[in-house]
Amino acid sequence: MSMDTNQQVLEKLKTDLAQAGTMPLYLCFNESVRQAMEAGILQDGDFLPSERQFTEILGISRITVRKALARLEEDGHIGRSRGYGTFIKKATDARLAYSLAGVKGFSREVMLQGRKPDTLWISRDQVPASALIASKLAIIENTPVYMLKRIHYIDTRPMSVAVSYVIMDAIRDVEEIGVSLYDYFGRNNIELGALQSRVSAAMSDAENLKALQLKEAMPLLIIKQTLFDGQNRPIEYSESFCRSDMYEFVSED
Amino acid sequence: MSMDTNQQVLEKLKTDLAQAGTMPLYLCFNESVRQAMEAGILQDGDFLPSERQFTEILGISRITVRKALARLEEDGHIGRSRGYGTFIKKATDARLAYSLAGVKGFSREVMLQGRKPDTLWISRDQVPASALIASKLAIIENTPVYMLKRIHYIDTRPMSVAVSYVIMDAIRDVEEIGVSLYDYFGRNNIELGALQSRVSAAMSDAENLKALQLKEAMPLLIIKQTLFDGQNRPIEYSESFCRSDMYEFVSED
Repeated sequence: MSMDTNQQVLEKLKTDLAQAGTMPLYLCFNESVRQAMEAGILQDGDFLPSERQFTEILGISRITVRKALARLEEDGHIGRSRGYGTFIKKATDARLAYSLAGVKGFSREVMLQGRKPDTLWISRDQVPASALIASKLAIIENTPVYMLKRIHYIDTRPMSVAVSYVIMDAIRDVEEIGVSLYDYFGRNNIELGALQSRVSAAMSDAENLKALQLKEAMPLLIIKQTLFDGQNRPIEYSESFCRSDMYEFVSED
Repeated sequence: MSMDTNQQVLEKLKTDLAQAGTMPLYLCFNESVRQAMEAGILQDGDFLPSERQFTEILGISRITVRKALARLEEDGHIGRSRGYGTFIKKATDARLAYSLAGVKGFSREVMLQGRKPDTLWISRDQVPASALIASKLAIIENTPVYMLKRIHYIDTRPMSVAVSYVIMDAIRDVEEIGVSLYDYFGRNNIELGALQSRVSAAMSDAENLKALQLKEAMPLLIIKQTLFDGQNRPIEYSESFCRSDMYEFVSED
């Protein structure tokens, strides 16, 4: 990292820490570094000041610095290199912490974390509901539903493969759905209600391997979700297969 | 399945379905079969009546029967065998649907599903908190904490390996903790508050392979949880490594 960047980061941290109020210092430190990343002050591969510089220039304890760095490392924002210190990881190397609370959908979830979502559509078909899909959507078996297959990207990297089954009533024109299905529901004034999620894991199969451009098999996180509308009717059942090195699911209760 | 069992199940279903009220019939059917399993009327490997018997004797539609069977199969309670029909799976083959809502802990979660939890203790040590643990428990690095390692069982089968870091204040005598840490907190009048969960996945490593008695590597679900007390102070941070063929995590929002 250049001396300029170094100074900019330390100055930003100094200002932010002075305004921490009742917020624990290490969390304030953490947030400040993340803001510096979003603002482009810190970029991929930039080295952070040393632990010693942080403590001396900012006048905070080594414990605070270590806690903050441990948290940034855990969240995938920084890496450590023996002998060279701590560096900013490429945004695409950070895990997506996907919240199970609040119905946001992939695209909004990604944007909230300051990253760029994209969607590659594979197919948008009408199919008869299988027994399982009918049970999930509370409809009669063989009722036609939309089956929507797509690959979710962050920047240019495939993150997950999703297949959604949606009741016909919830979609007027299947070709109008853009990057985000949930945004489409919003534009069509469909009120979103509860979301049930089940998270499991399994090895990738040949189909997912190809869709996710994996060189070799890896564990995938599988999330199965049922989305209800405001009147508590199920409108979508989806199964997503997510790279385990790029995702984690987060809940709070 | 013997004719007797067959009749018992159909009679139970008939009675239960007649009292379904506003509950969808397939859910009532599902619940009735689960009760028959818990009561021992249906046992491991027992075959269920045929789809035709169900519809004719119970006077319900084929769609309802199929929906109910699809749901039971999805939950791991029944299996299908071509040419022989549908059979009850061993309880230990069913996946544990572990709820992220409500702070129950492994043992209570298992008991609620009518199965028998057990715990094999590996170690109960005092260790200095690492930077990560200190950050999670909002304490100063190197403060002593309890590190509790154990293997969780259902019946005689190892399901997951858990390591918990607990603040000293929350444990009076570490040897008094029995099968359930959360029950111990309860006996010590520790009020439990929020629970934060992060679910990820990775391949088993050599240590987990041995602890879980796996013959070969498999994907594990990893759940990292921070438990807070009634005053919103973190008291426990845990990491559990769970067999992906035996677990799923469930949330509703």
